[in-house]
Amino acid sequence: MARFLKNREPVKGQSPGALVFVGTRKTDEIDIRVIDYDDHHLTDQAMVDIQDTLHYKTSESVTWININGLHDVDTIGRIGNAFDLHSLVMEDILNTGQRPKIDDYDDYLFIVLKMIRFDRQTGMVKNEQLSLVVGERFILTFQERPGDVFEPVRERIRRQKSRLRAGGTDYLAYALMDTVVENYISVIEHIGEQIEDLEEEILSDHDKKVMEKINRFKRETSYLKKSIRPAREAIFQLLRLESDLIHEKTLFFFKDLEDLIIHATEAIDTYRDLLTDQLNIYNSVTANKMNDIMKVLTIFAAIFIPLTFIAGIYGTNFDYLPELRYKYSYFIFWGVLVVIAGALLGYFKKKKWF
Amino acid sequence: MARFLKNREPVKGQSPGALVFVGTRKTDEIDIRVIDYDDHHLTDQAMVDIQDTLHYKTSESVTWININGLHDVDTIGRIGNAFDLHSLVMEDILNTGQRPKIDDYDDYLFIVLKMIRFDRQTGMVKNEQLSLVVGERFILTFQERPGDVFEPVRERIRRQKSRLRAGGTDYLAYALMDTVVENYISVIEHIGEQIEDLEEEILSDHDKKVMEKINRFKRETSYLKKSIRPAREAIFQLLRLESDLIHEKTLFFFKDLEDLIIHATEAIDTYRDLLTDQLNIYNSVTANKMNDIMKVLTIFAAIFIPLTFIAGIYGTNFDYLPELRYKYSYFIFWGVLVVIAGALLGYFKKKKWF
Amino acid sequence: MARFLKNREPVKGQSPGALVFVGTRKTDEIDIRVIDYDDHHLTDQAMVDIQDTLHYKTSESVTWININGLHDVDTIGRIGNAFDLHSLVMEDILNTGQRPKIDDYDDYLFIVLKMIRFDRQTGMVKNEQLSLVVGERFILTFQERPGDVFEPVRERIRRQKSRLRAGGTDYLAYALMDTVVENYISVIEHIGEQIEDLEEEILSDHDKKVMEKINRFKRETSYLKKSIRPAREAIFQLLRLESDLIHEKTLFFFKDLEDLIIHATEAIDTYRDLLTDQLNIYNSVTANKMNDIMKVLTIFAAIFIPLTFIAGIYGTNFDYLPELRYKYSYFIFWGVLVVIAGALLGYFKKKKWF
Amino acid sequence: MARFLKNREPVKGQSPGALVFVGTRKTDEIDIRVIDYDDHHLTDQAMVDIQDTLHYKTSESVTWININGLHDVDTIGRIGNAFDLHSLVMEDILNTGQRPKIDDYDDYLFIVLKMIRFDRQTGMVKNEQLSLVVGERFILTFQERPGDVFEPVRERIRRQKSRLRAGGTDYLAYALMDTVVENYISVIEHIGEQIEDLEEEILSDHDKKVMEKINRFKRETSYLKKSIRPAREAIFQLLRLESDLIHEKTLFFFKDLEDLIIHATEAIDTYRDLLTDQLNIYNSVTANKMNDIMKVLTIFAAIFIPLTFIAGIYGTNFDYLPELRYKYSYFIFWGVLVVIAGALLGYFKKKKWF
Amino acid sequence: MARFLKNREPVKGQSPGALVFVGTRKTDEIDIRVIDYDDHHLTDQAMVDIQDTLHYKTSESVTWININGLHDVDTIGRIGNAFDLHSLVMEDILNTGQRPKIDDYDDYLFIVLKMIRFDRQTGMVKNEQLSLVVGERFILTFQERPGDVFEPVRERIRRQKSRLRAGGTDYLAYALMDTVVENYISVIEHIGEQIEDLEEEILSDHDKKVMEKINRFKRETSYLKKSIRPAREAIFQLLRLESDLIHEKTLFFFKDLEDLIIHATEAIDTYRDLLTDQLNIYNSVTANKMNDIMKVLTIFAAIFIPLTFIAGIYGTNFDYLPELRYKYSYFIFWGVLVVIAGALLGYFKKKKWF
Ligand SMILES: [Mg+2]
Ligand SMILES: [Mg+2]
Ligand SMILES: [Mg+2]
Ligand SMILES: [Mg+2]
Ligand SMILES: [Mg+2]
Ligand SMILES: [Mg+2]
Ligand SMILES: [Mg+2]
Ligand SMILES: [Mg+2]
Ligand SMILES: [Mg+2]
Ligand SMILES: [Mg+2]
Ligand SMILES: [Mg+2]
Ligand SMILES: [Mg+2]
Ligand SMILES: [Mg+2]
Ligand SMILES: [Mg+2]
Ligand SMILES: [Mg+2]
Ligand SMILES: [Mg+2]
Ligand SMILES: [Mg+2]
Ligand SMILES: [Mg+2]
Ligand SMILES: [Mg+2]
Ligand SMILES: [Mg+2]
Ligand SMILES: [Mg+2]
Ligand SMILES: [Mg+2]
Ligand SMILES: [Mg+2]
Ligand SMILES: [Mg+2]
Ligand SMILES: [Mg+2]
Ligand SMILES: [Mg+2]
Ligand SMILES: [Mg+2]
Ligand SMILES: [Mg+2]
Ligand SMILES: [Mg+2]
Ligand SMILES: [Mg+2]
Ligand SMILES: [Mg+2]
Repeated sequence: MARFLKNREPVKGQSPGALVFVGTRKTDEIDIRVIDYDDHHLTDQAMVDIQDTLHYKTSESVTWININGLHDVDTIGRIGNAFDLHSLVMEDILNTGQRPKIDDYDDYLFIVLKMIRFDRQTGMVKNEQLSLVVGERFILTFQERPGDVFEPVRERIRRQKSRLRAGGTDYLAYALMDTVVENYISVIEHIGEQIEDLEEEILSDHDKKVMEKINRFKRETSYLKKSIRPAREAIFQLLRLESDLIHEKTLFFFKDLEDLIIHATEAIDTYRDLLTDQLNIYNSVTANKMNDIMKVLTIFAAIFIPLTFIAGIYGTNFDYLPELRYKYSYFIFWGVLVVIAGALLGYFKKKKWF
Repeated sequence: MARFLKNREPVKGQSPGALVFVGTRKTDEIDIRVIDYDDHHLTDQAMVDIQDTLHYKTSESVTWININGLHDVDTIGRIGNAFDLHSLVMEDILNTGQRPKIDDYDDYLFIVLKMIRFDRQTGMVKNEQLSLVVGERFILTFQERPGDVFEPVRERIRRQKSRLRAGGTDYLAYALMDTVVENYISVIEHIGEQIEDLEEEILSDHDKKVMEKINRFKRETSYLKKSIRPAREAIFQLLRLESDLIHEKTLFFFKDLEDLIIHATEAIDTYRDLLTDQLNIYNSVTANKMNDIMKVLTIFAAIFIPLTFIAGIYGTNFDYLPELRYKYSYFIFWGVLVVIAGALLGYFKKKKWF
Repeated sequence: MARFLKNREPVKGQSPGALVFVGTRKTDEIDIRVIDYDDHHLTDQAMVDIQDTLHYKTSESVTWININGLHDVDTIGRIGNAFDLHSLVMEDILNTGQRPKIDDYDDYLFIVLKMIRFDRQTGMVKNEQLSLVVGERFILTFQERPGDVFEPVRERIRRQKSRLRAGGTDYLAYALMDTVVENYISVIEHIGEQIEDLEEEILSDHDKKVMEKINRFKRETSYLKKSIRPAREAIFQLLRLESDLIHEKTLFFFKDLEDLIIHATEAIDTYRDLLTDQLNIYNSVTANKMNDIMKVLTIFAAIFIPLTFIAGIYGTNFDYLPELRYKYSYFIFWGVLVVIAGALLGYFKKKKWF
Repeated sequence: MARFLKNREPVKGQSPGALVFVGTRKTDEIDIRVIDYDDHHLTDQAMVDIQDTLHYKTSESVTWININGLHDVDTIGRIGNAFDLHSLVMEDILNTGQRPKIDDYDDYLFIVLKMIRFDRQTGMVKNEQLSLVVGERFILTFQERPGDVFEPVRERIRRQKSRLRAGGTDYLAYALMDTVVENYISVIEHIGEQIEDLEEEILSDHDKKVMEKINRFKRETSYLKKSIRPAREAIFQLLRLESDLIHEKTLFFFKDLEDLIIHATEAIDTYRDLLTDQLNIYNSVTANKMNDIMKVLTIFAAIFIPLTFIAGIYGTNFDYLPELRYKYSYFIFWGVLVVIAGALLGYFKKKKWF
Repeated sequence: MARFLKNREPVKGQSPGALVFVGTRKTDEIDIRVIDYDDHHLTDQAMVDIQDTLHYKTSESVTWININGLHDVDTIGRIGNAFDLHSLVMEDILNTGQRPKIDDYDDYLFIVLKMIRFDRQTGMVKNEQLSLVVGERFILTFQERPGDVFEPVRERIRRQKSRLRAGGTDYLAYALMDTVVENYISVIEHIGEQIEDLEEEILSDHDKKVMEKINRFKRETSYLKKSIRPAREAIFQLLRLESDLIHEKTLFFFKDLEDLIIHATEAIDTYRDLLTDQLNIYNSVTANKMNDIMKVLTIFAAIFIPLTFIAGIYGTNFDYLPELRYKYSYFIFWGVLVVIAGALLGYFKKKKWF
């Protein structure tokens, strides 16, 4: 299956907003977790039926409803109806090949991001789609499967004095997105370290494996770029949106988030440039090695082929071959061979071939 | 014939708006199909004479008139007159080498797109020009030949409860364009999968065929890019057009369409980058193979050429050649050969040549 | 002489507006042809003295005065004075190395374009400067030498019912420029076809000539780009100019012209990309061929050099060399040679070298 | 550790504004130095407790408080509280992997830059983060470790007639930033000189070391670019900011600073281009050398292999081999060898192989 | 010394506006020449003391004061004071590594350009900084050394009827800048001609010198680009400046100057592209030559090595070697050699190796 572009066959020809799951089924059950808080109270509970969460929609407290698993289209559909989500939003949540973006639907913002993970087994970057619906008093987050990077955020919510407890949904949205982007930096840093180390390897242990590594990192940084760069645009847009849902003082935090994601995308570009340079150097080293091999061959051939020829002359069986008869011929013969060999060696030495 | 640029000889020097068909005749008869609907009724009929469709031009219901085949210039001209189309519009419809675009003629929008198809026989991408005229109460679509990607749209029109039946011509235009763009993704995904598989092939079965495949995909993605990228610009423009023909609530759908086509063009760019990287890796593998070949040659030559020389020495016929007379000479001779061969092998081993 | 940049020595240090012809003298006599028309009448005559055309300057009818040949600076100067042209305009008309552009002088527009021609003898693109002065009731066109692409326009003027006869100078200017740009497409299409054919040639008849062709087309497309891209900018500007000289309804036609020239420049870019890809493939094919040659060499050398060595051993003249005496030695010797050769062949076969 | 992207693990999952030092501990003690001046007086003292500096915050005189060392998070935190700095500002000061930038917090500007240094031991560029907080009457500067480029600024402050003594904090900020950017030019000039010298080296002493140098300079200029280019954007932004903190007449100086940093970034780009060109030339030289080596090999092999073959013919032991019996055979044999060798030499001479 | 970036050590740490000469001392004495004119009178005199020119500052006539030589910082400083120049302007005049630019100081415009010269001895482009201060009634020009491109301007000033005599300082500034830019075209044309000729050379006399030429021209065009491109930006800015110092009717002339410098920079880009293409072709030719060399080697080796082996067989001294005894063996032996050689030649012929 194409990794860089998800197969959209199931959704082709469907009405926009038709609820069809596009992706690989990554969890067995859809689980829903509701965290509701203001600066005074905090509740954190697993839920089965979305109807039980409806009163949170308008309650003054901040409510974060996280949904893991998207394959049960009916459940997802019911959530959408409960929270009056536009059918295009529902479609994008289910279509996990979505490009990161932000859409302003007045009553809520719809944000799509990718959570990134480096899989050490395969040496590949994996991503998981995260969709956020940011309303005035609630946030919905949709993930493809259990497991995420948000534990520190939950931890901070549990601390009563944290800025999160005093903030609104905009600040919670920022905290979630910031955690996702921090994680980008982490993954890039992990890959980048290995890329920087490659340089040494190219010059010392030049072999085919280095080239395969360069290749692999090129592909993985390409995959990272595809996942992260649109998120940069989305955050840029968010900052220029004049939505009531984002308060003035939270803007500073989103501005800081923009710094972070610019940092991330520039680091990817820099590492891609390094890889391009490394492949160039690898090729230069290969060519230099070829020259060295050829020099060895040429030195051996150029010295011994003429000598062998001379020996061949005196191996001929001509009846009349005067030199063969002379007593010191054999020693003169050796002298000539040594002089020729020496002259050729001197020639190659002068050419700095060895 | 140039595939990347259609021969325009027939149209050269003609008045703008002169009706000349530019393309290869792809169908025998022009056929016209009229689908007329509102939320209450639906009719779907083939027609011969365009005059019979004239009352649909102003009737309240939404009318979709699809024309297959453009070679009969008179028929096309009559349609243009019947619907008061500008002569430049008629010219563009007939000139199938048109670049995708959108023009706003106040009373109607004129949109040119390419329908894409991957031909498995030739391994080439084929395109077909689709021209749309979007009026207040009617849509005209012109195709070069029968067969299109619109069957699912027709299916949805037939379902009385579908959003299409409740929408206007703007929503029908969106549905048609969305289907075309969904199909782009499909074709890109099909090609992309093969491109991603190439990487493995380069490293394992490196041969000339892989290089030809890389080349072919470069050309085909170049062709895709040429067909799709201008459509992205057109959709971008459409969103910023302040035309009465596009209603507020349909804009969300066109925005979604923009997401989709951005996704498509970025995927093409990513795949083109992958191909560039793959060709670089292919070349590095070729150079590495050359080194391996040269090592084999050099090892054989460097070891056996000196040995042959020594054998040659003792094949000479000098009258006085003392070593030949000594009883153990032959065995010492072999000893020397083995030592030399061993030393050279050790040298190459140390150089990690094998 | 530099082809990509005309020698401007004659004009250096001159006052701006000094009338100095820059170019190679391409015609012997300057000839002037005046076509004057409105929807009722048409006159078409050769003229000697520009003074005779002066009444056309203000007459209601549309007057097109075409001047072939620029080397007679005095004549050109008199024309400039007669029509009150700015000295900078006169300078640009005479300096045939001018970059395509449009300048708005309120009373008239000054437009510089290049007419392009593919010279089959030399396989090179040739250009000729065309300067247009578009006034309210007259158009002046200046060419370097006789012969142009405007015959179809003259033909259309002769047809009384043509749109040209009903239009003003703006529409005539459009018709002329459109003819020039249609011709660009023609030339690009002609070259492009040959470029597309190269691909096949690279893979089948790879030789030095293909590389020289790639090189030549790169240079010619570079020359095309230099001549055409600035014209695209000029037409873009013309569309955004708010000049009274261009009427509302003619704008649609200039918009269509913009479509055409964007098409042309994108085709050049696409072909340049194809050429870059082709050179890469050519180089990969060259490297593959080298590998094939080296394999042949290595197989021959690696098999026969050891065999020759063994034969050499038994060609030595040692007094005591026991194997030589044994009756079946020669046949065992052959057996050993065959086994060694077979083993090496098997090794290379396994490496897929043949 | 990745050099191009600092490890941010310690800060991951933390609240924004959490004070965590990101970097390597570069000094043992945090030291604080306060320079306070107006055109009449000047004091310059080391301080231990930030509380002692508080009255400078609002005093009319210009106060420059420089802090060396960031690892003592508590001290830094107290400084932040004392000067009412936003928690995001404090976080950025401590996170020394910050991208250069400027933020406008109304009451103060927050500026992050990198101080650059070329380390001759390692041949690497080192950077150190410099954070500036520019208030109405005070400037705070934070450095990672002692030692900076500001001594000339302090010198100028000591001169009572200097423009610095008459200026405000905006002019002091300019003077500090100008000194940092002057130092960029210095480092680039130092590296650039070595890059320019490489060209000569490639053509005369072509060896592996040159390639390693090209590689090293590519990496270092990439590192420079990453450190300096964002600073250019920041200065550009500063000039367009409408902050009360920057007075009209100081803008000329910041404009001059913009000139300087544009100069710096363009020089980096130019040197990067030179390096790319140099690697290309290096590779061409390598390929040319390979050709030279192969010519030597081929000339030797092509001449002596046939000769050896002929000698081999007459070394055969056929009972009946008529040429061996003829008296002048040996001399004719030599004649033939010389003619063949001469013909081949002539052939290679004609091919200009030597 | 770095050629692409001037050593700024002397100016580091200095106050902005500190008068320090940055450059190499290029003349011994500073000489000052004053040309004062209106349409009635003209004076042209050498001066020693700048004080004598002060009355020209406000006199109605146009005064052009040219200063050659910048090393005498005191003299330059006095000139600055006399004409009330900003200290940043004085600094830029003395710092001859300045990037071309334009600054608007209300009372005067400050313009920095480079005068370019191609030095035939070294084959290198040399530049010299030209600073212009354009006041309402005077122009100051500062050059590094005597000798410039302005003689034709002086000539035109001497002609009483010239447009220069009727114009103001803005028109004089235009005339000077136009002369500088005309000279750019001249130098580019001179280099470009040589670049265009290289193509032929690559295909016919492919050797190391061609590669060194390509390299040299790459470096020189890079140097040209660095000197000229910022001037294009400066002229672009000048046209959009709303300064009272530039009158409406002079704007047409500056617009013409913009055309010229765009032409210059595009020509440089085109030539740089040509050079890149040429290096690619050069490398392809090198690879093709390598293939040719290897074919020669392989043909010789593949034919003669097996033959030599066969000769070796019959040079062995086995007691029992039946073929040696047969009378026609030698002739059969030759027959076999000829057949083998013929078969191999046929094989290589079929492969089109010769
Ligand atoms: Mg990419
Ligand atoms: Mg980059
Ligand atoms: Mg990059
Ligand atoms: Mg980069
Ligand atoms: Mg890249
Ligand atoms: Mg790069
Ligand atoms: Mg790309
Ligand atoms: Mg891309
Ligand atoms: Mg990409
Ligand atoms: Mg590309
Ligand atoms: Mg890329
Ligand atoms: Mg590339
Ligand atoms: Mg392109
Ligand atoms: Mg392109
Ligand atoms: Mg392209
Ligand atoms: Mg491309
Ligand atoms: Mg491309
Ligand atoms: Mg290109
Ligand atoms: Mg870079
Ligand atoms: Mg660059
Ligand atoms: Mg650059
Ligand atoms: Mg550059
Ligand atoms: Mg780069
Ligand atoms: Mg460059
Ligand atoms: Mg470059
Ligand atoms: Mg270019
Ligand atoms: Mg270019
Ligand atoms: Mg170009
Ligand atoms: Mg370039
Ligand atoms: Mg190019
Ligand atoms: Mg190019």
